[in-house]
Amino acid sequence: MSEPSPHSSGCIFCRIIAGEIPCQKIIENQNILCFLDIGPVVVGHSLVIPKRHVGNIFDMPPKLAADLGHELPALARAICAAVQAPACHILLNSGVEAMQSVHHAHYHIIPRKSDDGFFVPWHPGKLRTQEAHDLISKIQNNYENMDNGISA
Amino acid sequence: MSEPSPHSSGCIFCRIIAGEIPCQKIIENQNILCFLDIGPVVVGHSLVIPKRHVGNIFDMPPKLAADLGHELPALARAICAAVQAPACHILLNSGVEAMQSVHHAHYHIIPRKSDDGFFVPWHPGKLRTQEAHDLISKIQNNYENMDNGISA
Repeated sequence: MSEPSPHSSGCIFCRIIAGEIPCQKIIENQNILCFLDIGPVVVGHSLVIPKRHVGNIFDMPPKLAADLGHELPALARAICAAVQAPACHILLNSGVEAMQSVHHAHYHIIPRKSDDGFFVPWHPGKLRTQEAHDLISKIQNNYENMDNGISA
Repeated sequence: MSEPSPHSSGCIFCRIIAGEIPCQKIIENQNILCFLDIGPVVVGHSLVIPKRHVGNIFDMPPKLAADLGHELPALARAICAAVQAPACHILLNSGVEAMQSVHHAHYHIIPRKSDDGFFVPWHPGKLRTQEAHDLISKIQNNYENMDNGISA
């Protein structure tokens, strides 16, 4: 995969980072920007984005993924405490089939309370042993043969 | 907050890490274990857990959160390629109100394809300016006054 551009001029989140489009900014540091989602699914719904443009988790250099991860605990605590939510989802949607609408990787922090109306339908299937073995073999083969350090 | 125990004997994921309970292991390294979810919501549904016990995102030391984040891109790519999924959710549920059932922090990697039956209902509200300002003020105040480096 190619080196992601540090800035993508057509990207709405890059334009927010550049100050060309306003946002309800919470926290900014050298690696990330955190701001309130303009279309909150619950009160306090926030986004955490890397300042460097990267489309999704698949294209994300591990170092950048680590830098993003590093910020999540404190942001989750500060956001959930502000709305008195005892719980939250940390959600990164990658790809249109996973509901990604802005193609600059972003974590949603979604504070959760009982009876807040938000939910994720969860219908667990059964993991069959032979299917699991076949799948693991494929995944391990992919993992071992990929360039894990893209653009790190 | 108190220092999280490196191992919690009553924790099913700690027991999996210790080899006391089997799992369908994909990848293991010094920081994380990745295995297939026993109750997959889609084919390829996997979990990524830190080897050190920590309950959820709120209690997670930033360094551990960074180490976890570091592993996600390569795992997401290997898993999604194995099931030919062009997309995925990266989801960490923290707290029972956010559907966390095992209280050892874990990222779900949920591969997504069109018409796979999995979905997250998404009903965006409207972010009102005054409400946003009040909320940001509270979050920033929390952020500045917390110990961001817990157990780092």
